[in-house]
Amino acid sequence: MKRNAQPLGHAPSLLSGLSLSHGKRTRLHRMLYRHGPANGTLLVLPLDQGLEHGPTDFFPNPPALDPDYQFRLAEAGGFSAIALGVGLAEKYMGEYCGRVPLILKLNGKTNIPDDGDATSPLFASVEDAVRLGADAAGYTFYVGSPRQHDELRQFEKVRQDCERFGMPLVVWSYPRGAGIDAKGGKNTLFAQDYAARVALELGADLVKLHEPDDSVAGVPAPYDSLKEDAATRSARVVRSAGRTMVLFSGGVKDDDDAAVLRKVEFYMQAGATGVMFGRNMWLRPFDQAVALTRAVHEIMARYPR
Amino acid sequence: MKRNAQPLGHAPSLLSGLSLSHGKRTRLHRMLYRHGPANGTLLVLPLDQGLEHGPTDFFPNPPALDPDYQFRLAEAGGFSAIALGVGLAEKYMGEYCGRVPLILKLNGKTNIPDDGDATSPLFASVEDAVRLGADAAGYTFYVGSPRQHDELRQFEKVRQDCERFGMPLVVWSYPRGAGIDAKGGKNTLFAQDYAARVALELGADLVKLHEPDDSVAGVPAPYDSLKEDAATRSARVVRSAGRTMVLFSGGVKDDDDAAVLRKVEFYMQAGATGVMFGRNMWLRPFDQAVALTRAVHEIMARYPR
Amino acid sequence: MKRNAQPLGHAPSLLSGLSLSHGKRTRLHRMLYRHGPANGTLLVLPLDQGLEHGPTDFFPNPPALDPDYQFRLAEAGGFSAIALGVGLAEKYMGEYCGRVPLILKLNGKTNIPDDGDATSPLFASVEDAVRLGADAAGYTFYVGSPRQHDELRQFEKVRQDCERFGMPLVVWSYPRGAGIDAKGGKNTLFAQDYAARVALELGADLVKLHEPDDSVAGVPAPYDSLKEDAATRSARVVRSAGRTMVLFSGGVKDDDDAAVLRKVEFYMQAGATGVMFGRNMWLRPFDQAVALTRAVHEIMARYPR
Amino acid sequence: MKRNAQPLGHAPSLLSGLSLSHGKRTRLHRMLYRHGPANGTLLVLPLDQGLEHGPTDFFPNPPALDPDYQFRLAEAGGFSAIALGVGLAEKYMGEYCGRVPLILKLNGKTNIPDDGDATSPLFASVEDAVRLGADAAGYTFYVGSPRQHDELRQFEKVRQDCERFGMPLVVWSYPRGAGIDAKGGKNTLFAQDYAARVALELGADLVKLHEPDDSVAGVPAPYDSLKEDAATRSARVVRSAGRTMVLFSGGVKDDDDAAVLRKVEFYMQAGATGVMFGRNMWLRPFDQAVALTRAVHEIMARYPR
Amino acid sequence: MKRNAQPLGHAPSLLSGLSLSHGKRTRLHRMLYRHGPANGTLLVLPLDQGLEHGPTDFFPNPPALDPDYQFRLAEAGGFSAIALGVGLAEKYMGEYCGRVPLILKLNGKTNIPDDGDATSPLFASVEDAVRLGADAAGYTFYVGSPRQHDELRQFEKVRQDCERFGMPLVVWSYPRGAGIDAKGGKNTLFAQDYAARVALELGADLVKLHEPDDSVAGVPAPYDSLKEDAATRSARVVRSAGRTMVLFSGGVKDDDDAAVLRKVEFYMQAGATGVMFGRNMWLRPFDQAVALTRAVHEIMARYPR
Repeated sequence: MKRNAQPLGHAPSLLSGLSLSHGKRTRLHRMLYRHGPANGTLLVLPLDQGLEHGPTDFFPNPPALDPDYQFRLAEAGGFSAIALGVGLAEKYMGEYCGRVPLILKLNGKTNIPDDGDATSPLFASVEDAVRLGADAAGYTFYVGSPRQHDELRQFEKVRQDCERFGMPLVVWSYPRGAGIDAKGGKNTLFAQDYAARVALELGADLVKLHEPDDSVAGVPAPYDSLKEDAATRSARVVRSAGRTMVLFSGGVKDDDDAAVLRKVEFYMQAGATGVMFGRNMWLRPFDQAVALTRAVHEIMARYPR
Repeated sequence: MKRNAQPLGHAPSLLSGLSLSHGKRTRLHRMLYRHGPANGTLLVLPLDQGLEHGPTDFFPNPPALDPDYQFRLAEAGGFSAIALGVGLAEKYMGEYCGRVPLILKLNGKTNIPDDGDATSPLFASVEDAVRLGADAAGYTFYVGSPRQHDELRQFEKVRQDCERFGMPLVVWSYPRGAGIDAKGGKNTLFAQDYAARVALELGADLVKLHEPDDSVAGVPAPYDSLKEDAATRSARVVRSAGRTMVLFSGGVKDDDDAAVLRKVEFYMQAGATGVMFGRNMWLRPFDQAVALTRAVHEIMARYPR
Repeated sequence: MKRNAQPLGHAPSLLSGLSLSHGKRTRLHRMLYRHGPANGTLLVLPLDQGLEHGPTDFFPNPPALDPDYQFRLAEAGGFSAIALGVGLAEKYMGEYCGRVPLILKLNGKTNIPDDGDATSPLFASVEDAVRLGADAAGYTFYVGSPRQHDELRQFEKVRQDCERFGMPLVVWSYPRGAGIDAKGGKNTLFAQDYAARVALELGADLVKLHEPDDSVAGVPAPYDSLKEDAATRSARVVRSAGRTMVLFSGGVKDDDDAAVLRKVEFYMQAGATGVMFGRNMWLRPFDQAVALTRAVHEIMARYPR
Repeated sequence: MKRNAQPLGHAPSLLSGLSLSHGKRTRLHRMLYRHGPANGTLLVLPLDQGLEHGPTDFFPNPPALDPDYQFRLAEAGGFSAIALGVGLAEKYMGEYCGRVPLILKLNGKTNIPDDGDATSPLFASVEDAVRLGADAAGYTFYVGSPRQHDELRQFEKVRQDCERFGMPLVVWSYPRGAGIDAKGGKNTLFAQDYAARVALELGADLVKLHEPDDSVAGVPAPYDSLKEDAATRSARVVRSAGRTMVLFSGGVKDDDDAAVLRKVEFYMQAGATGVMFGRNMWLRPFDQAVALTRAVHEIMARYPR
Repeated sequence: MKRNAQPLGHAPSLLSGLSLSHGKRTRLHRMLYRHGPANGTLLVLPLDQGLEHGPTDFFPNPPALDPDYQFRLAEAGGFSAIALGVGLAEKYMGEYCGRVPLILKLNGKTNIPDDGDATSPLFASVEDAVRLGADAAGYTFYVGSPRQHDELRQFEKVRQDCERFGMPLVVWSYPRGAGIDAKGGKNTLFAQDYAARVALELGADLVKLHEPDDSVAGVPAPYDSLKEDAATRSARVVRSAGRTMVLFSGGVKDDDDAAVLRKVEFYMQAGATGVMFGRNMWLRPFDQAVALTRAVHEIMARYPR
């Protein structure tokens, strides 16, 4: 549990410990205590790969190309929320309104141009999220990008609109760009730890992070000389995120169900509030995916927040 | 039919299956069921070549230089809509108001500068479309352009205005720029398939695509190893567009009427909602063009949506 | 006459054939039928050289450095309008208000920086034109500039404001920049023909063009193989401008009065609505300039529109 | 006098000959006829060197580092106005309000970055000038800068706000940037003459210029072959400024009082409305500076406007 | 004291000598006379290192990673204010509201990209500061950055909003970028002296500066030939800041308590209003840090302003 994993400071007793507006509190409560595991943890199904990677990602499981597949899975599997963009929400959420909470992704990009000075432009607004009945807005922030100037200015408006509308803000905090590449790459502890703190500093309510790896080549001090095991590394980034709740990413698909479940347990032990598993869920045949979410629920039931 | 071509997901039973505002529904209904074939299919006459290519395109048929030629053809041939920019609409639509639905193209550019970091700037607004009585707004999106940041931000405003005014949004989804060139070019299945999904993700109501070719040089996996025939490729991109209706482009002029008609049949079998044929129509002598549209109507009559 | 020069389409019977707002119609009527030749043609005196080229242009006739010289000439010579910027209008138009129609030039630049990616920034607005009692707004558009993105976005606002205020819009449609240089330069038939069409597509009410020359080096097909005489070339660009009225530029000063008059006749025969002669007028001694305008009036009297 | 120096056009009989709003007329009258020489001439004390050059400029006279020194001098010496930025005005003008007219400088920059594409960003607005009780707004325009696009757009807003609030506009018209360097540099007659005309074209009420020198290396025709003496050169730029009143700059400090006074006489004979002397005033010991301004007053008294 | 250190001009008798709006006066009074030393001096605890440097800075004292540590220290140690960003203020200030004055840092950046053209983008607004009950807004200005154009425009809005809301403005005035590097670097007397004046010119109420060092390599005249001792250098930059109050930075951590205290005394003797000590405070164990602040209070008590 996060509380156990945070011996150094004050424990974020989740919603009760945070100064939240009524709007944010209402919407967070819905995702944390009314949907999904409903014990203060979160199980989120993301579907932004069609824009970010193209239809490529759906090839292993062709039915997943139809966004209705993910909506059906989100409902049948009991996810806390589905996270996707305005085009998919407009055209596919109709019959699922009220049954599956929505995290509306506000920005995104294709992976066709070079990633050196990556920036993720807005293609929807917090007002769109309000109009569509979303329970949170999602925003990808490229930490350390050469274009962080544009990134931050764009983010400022989103954060303020979230404040104004009482909309919780989930930040995909992704180290990216030439500067990060020169300092060891995006998956190091240095990069993920910085990304966690940036999300906290910028005002994210929740942050999506990746599990930090153990590579130290090119990484700045003191990270280059740290020798921490995987559990300690993940607990560290959760701690750096402070009172911003952490969701760990599932990443590429792992065919081994048991391995997926071990990962969930690992993340929850590190103090995470939950996980955001996309391809590891919707690239499985429908019934297997639903069965897997049941097993995930059982794990998360042991980590109430 | 699209429904048959889409065994993997939920069939878009056109307007009845979509969550549309009253404004969008009214305007789409007019183009789909009141004009043109009037059976849920679309036959659109575009005239943006004067800006995009210059007067060059009109040389094979000099009378077509006068925009009144295309308006007369759109009415006489029974097109579902004419698609052009604000200057032409202002000066030539007068007597055709109410007789030919208008898709107002909002952005465009000349082909004089280099295309490496192509972007298509707005020169009209959704408000212009409303003021001119248009039934849809048209927008060219350069998928994967190095300037996609500007593209997306500009698009956001257009989409939101379309939502606000109940104006259907037709996206010319064109892979373009140095990134696409490095990945096999703009006409590959990879490029067109990505373009179809991007239009869906961004919230297009209709998307204009090109028929994907069979080239695989430089194309990313898994497209580089796909061996699909032309019909399968076209059906695939229709499927990737999901509930966004697909219009296939006619491209450069083909002097063979029968070949043009075979193309229409081919596109409708692939699941398209319709076709957007410009030069293949207005570069023909007036009477021949009218006769050809009659034959197209006969084909489209067999593919009610 | 333009009508004769346009056998291919519908004749623009000037104001009666156009869908114009009351404001545009009133202001155009004033310039076309109340001032200058007053028969549907236009004789315009431009004074933007001080900004575009510096005081250099006034050296051959020092009194012309004082903008009052041009205002006096515009009135004494019976010009349809004077075209200049906000600084000159504010400080020199006082006593000429109501006696000389004003075309307020909204954008411009010095010729000091390199012209490769030329763009002409706004330094006044359509509201300024309204406030100053102008009968039209003037805008320089660099066709094919590498910065056409900025150009078009800036133009959009100007065109919309013109629509909103009923202000006729005169576009100086100038091919310019590295792309045009690579395709034969700015004075070719290709370049001027494209410029004419662009003005029409963008929504200009009037367009200022240059007489196309006969060079074909570097020009794209099919222009590189056209063999048209000067009259045919000029008639072609008038036709490409469609229902946008054409004003031909006088260009650099020609000391031979007869040659100037032949040029006027030539342009009117090509179908132009009128001419915009600056240096060919105000670089002459005052009395000679007035006498020359009288002779121009006689020619234009034979080309009522 | 300017009237004598302008045999070619209409004499600017100062305020009576100009179409000015009540606000501009009131504020100009205060500076021209109520403060300083009070005979239609202007003696302005600028203090923008701290931002533009850093504290370096104050080293020769340490007390001048305290901005109160300049305010005291402006009052004791009887200056028509003091010209400085918002930070100094906010913190030092308190006790001088109503006793020393203020020209609020709206833009500026440090001299630390390279000057090749110089642009002078706004750090205050015309509203600030109104709020602080200023009698004019000051704006530095870099004539011919590669960034003139941004310069002009920024200037447009300032000019329109000045019009809206009745605030006179003083333009520091400075040739600057790579383009000017390639054409002979910023102090040539070509550069200053162009700068004078640009200020007029853009709508400046007053313009600050530098005395043009006699260098012709690299200068465009016809300036490269002009052989005019210093008096003729200065009279030329005053003439090119037309009805925009000219203030000549004092430039770097000259220790010789007599030389300073000769310069004032020289500028007034050239037709200037006044002078803007900063370092030549406040780098002198206080009593000497006051004595010098008395002598300047005597000269200016002989050039009523 | 500053007054003694400023023999050349008018003494800033702090609030009584300044023209301040009621809002600014109220808020400054609270920090200067109600919290901290409460005698007109300021002791500020900054916490922006998590964003600017990443979690790295917290490694020497792990409990400091939890922002509650700094809030507890600010209260227990009797700091005049804590300075941090919107994310930390939102999530950690709850129980400290009214007990620790807040300086809300509005802009910032990570140190991952290269610093050559550094700019510090806004990620919060003055309205956020008002909403959160802050007593001042903090802004980092990179003096002399190649992007000073963007910097200044962004700053203009912040300063005006501060004026509008009566919010005191603290400027972190940091020389930075390629231009400064070419002129001797950011810590020279030249750089810090310029930075002090820039803050005054731009309208800062308080400025944070670094102690200037004695390096002269590459520094422009006349600084390259100055031979001033440390006390004279620091007194000089205080003088250059004029009526803008100076806070000196504590910089990196010094383990020697006595050295830290000597530094405080040194700064106060130089005329500073106070100090901003972050890592020198919160990198110490909690009780040692509290004890150190008591000793600092004793020093500052001897320098009432």
